[in-house]
Amino acid sequence: MTGAGRARLLITAIVASLVILGIVVNRDAGPAARSADPVPALPSWNDGAARTAILSFVDRVTRAGGPGFVPPPARIAVFDNDGTLWSEQPMYVQLAFAIDRVKALAPSHPEWAGSQPFKAALEGDLETLAASGERGLSALVMATHAGITSEEFERIVQDWIATARHPKTGRLYTEMVYQPMLELLAYLRANGLKTFIVSGGGIEFVRPWAERVYGVPPEQVIGSSVKARYEVRNGRPVLARLPEINFINDEEGKPVGIQQHIGRRPIAAFGNSDGDFQMLEWTTAGPGTRLALIVHHDDDAREAAYDRASHIGRLARGLDEAATRGWVVASIARDWKTVFPTTTPK
Amino acid sequence: MTGAGRARLLITAIVASLVILGIVVNRDAGPAARSADPVPALPSWNDGAARTAILSFVDRVTRAGGPGFVPPPARIAVFDNDGTLWSEQPMYVQLAFAIDRVKALAPSHPEWAGSQPFKAALEGDLETLAASGERGLSALVMATHAGITSEEFERIVQDWIATARHPKTGRLYTEMVYQPMLELLAYLRANGLKTFIVSGGGIEFVRPWAERVYGVPPEQVIGSSVKARYEVRNGRPVLARLPEINFINDEEGKPVGIQQHIGRRPIAAFGNSDGDFQMLEWTTAGPGTRLALIVHHDDDAREAAYDRASHIGRLARGLDEAATRGWVVASIARDWKTVFPTTTPK
Repeated sequence: MTGAGRARLLITAIVASLVILGIVVNRDAGPAARSADPVPALPSWNDGAARTAILSFVDRVTRAGGPGFVPPPARIAVFDNDGTLWSEQPMYVQLAFAIDRVKALAPSHPEWAGSQPFKAALEGDLETLAASGERGLSALVMATHAGITSEEFERIVQDWIATARHPKTGRLYTEMVYQPMLELLAYLRANGLKTFIVSGGGIEFVRPWAERVYGVPPEQVIGSSVKARYEVRNGRPVLARLPEINFINDEEGKPVGIQQHIGRRPIAAFGNSDGDFQMLEWTTAGPGTRLALIVHHDDDAREAAYDRASHIGRLARGLDEAATRGWVVASIARDWKTVFPTTTPK
Repeated sequence: MTGAGRARLLITAIVASLVILGIVVNRDAGPAARSADPVPALPSWNDGAARTAILSFVDRVTRAGGPGFVPPPARIAVFDNDGTLWSEQPMYVQLAFAIDRVKALAPSHPEWAGSQPFKAALEGDLETLAASGERGLSALVMATHAGITSEEFERIVQDWIATARHPKTGRLYTEMVYQPMLELLAYLRANGLKTFIVSGGGIEFVRPWAERVYGVPPEQVIGSSVKARYEVRNGRPVLARLPEINFINDEEGKPVGIQQHIGRRPIAAFGNSDGDFQMLEWTTAGPGTRLALIVHHDDDAREAAYDRASHIGRLARGLDEAATRGWVVASIARDWKTVFPTTTPK
């Protein structure tokens, strides 16, 4: 072998090893603009308008020098949780949690047997529970989510989520997440987007498992909350959760929560109900490249079909205005190859 | 060259290219545990107990398999801002901002000429301003920080911070940041720590320039806030800042704000006044390797000497209890080679 041959071999080997490591892909993108470890582009999404809109959006915001380019720090993507990342039917998972907490706490609260909404919760009477309205549900949340420390609450959520199962499928709730959305989260992150959860549910209910299940760390979870107070008890500081609402992160509250936590407007927003309308509106009202996508639950065979008439995850205004606003409506029936992960949970 | 020789050459080339890329360094550390691009370890800090404590802490939390190791996602570091990252003397920078806003808005508020605390602000009478107490200062903040949208407020802060100058040194406020603390922020980040600002000041006052000056993005800034409301004005959504306190992120408020925004306990906390006491207490009460450090302003020649008797940045309990609590007290006079950056601002 000649000297030139050896040099050529060396260069080939170096280039090959870089390519293997995914370092020499997409040279036109800025630093950290794309992942070194390529993520498959949405394998559980069928070819169609929704998948195309996502791929086209990502291509535009990551193409350095292009008209739609967005620098990595501004690539903020926000996701609703209930009905967008995991199933919200036949009831919000957090309501199932609250009911289980009422049952666990009932021995110390004999008075609950005769007072609503606790009686309904103990009897699994969802209709009476729903009829108790905002006031009843608020009482239920306060009795089950407050009066303990933040660390105690986290442990309770961890223990519950590890074993509680969906009433229809018998799967763990963390297996009732949407496979196409898990892929979307990973795909956006691989393209330099920072993914946040913006849930109407409790911030401390989602945080304990969001990193393991969604790859979203606690500091990137936004949600509704109760007030808390710092106290030193026998020399040990705790955060006491108080029976008082701090913030409702739903509808008009979502853009407020986003500003409070993130401090800049997202470039992409994903939701499924009119509770997400203002989040999508706020996101797409910004300048430059934007993406808003609504998950439309229209697949009764594989999950559940509901929109305008549903009490949970009601979607009417979003459906009516999506086309004129340029928002993408993803149909579960048409756009998703699979709905839930087929593998066992993490 | 033999086949075996060629194979050896190939392997050597691949390994060499990996080493060049810094991929095979620090094999004992976990992924992303150490930066491939080494950051100089605190050049503006004198050798001494404070610098040693920081280096030793970082060494312990990053040493994989060691007893003090902390996985990267849990490496949260929190920094107070006023008096810890930039100068708070002779007055909080945000108060200087509020006074300038009163002056700018005065033409539309002729009534201010005869009513406190506005009269004092217009006359630069800091003593009367301070004497107006919490109620007076609150009125000043509401009149100057609310009644506009979040985007308008951000623009006003950006414009002001680009030109406003420190009354004594004549330097831009963003040049009145502490060089040793800038190095500390960078050094911690290079070792996988995620740096947050946890300020008693306004969250939206710090965010517009924190990324440029400190390398801390808006979503990693926590502070005090006013309430906000989402409104659609002529088809354009805005976040209206309301003249109502939402949260005071000081003293007992700091651990509450940390939990609300980050959702996990920091492993390192840096402050300078008793307003940071609870943040340091909360941080160091957690299990495993912890670091708390107080910047002690004891250098009248290069900055300002103040602690127990000061109205701004009062430090008494922290000084009294630091030793027994194992908190590090960094003396500006002894521990810092330089105080402010010598180069022109970013």
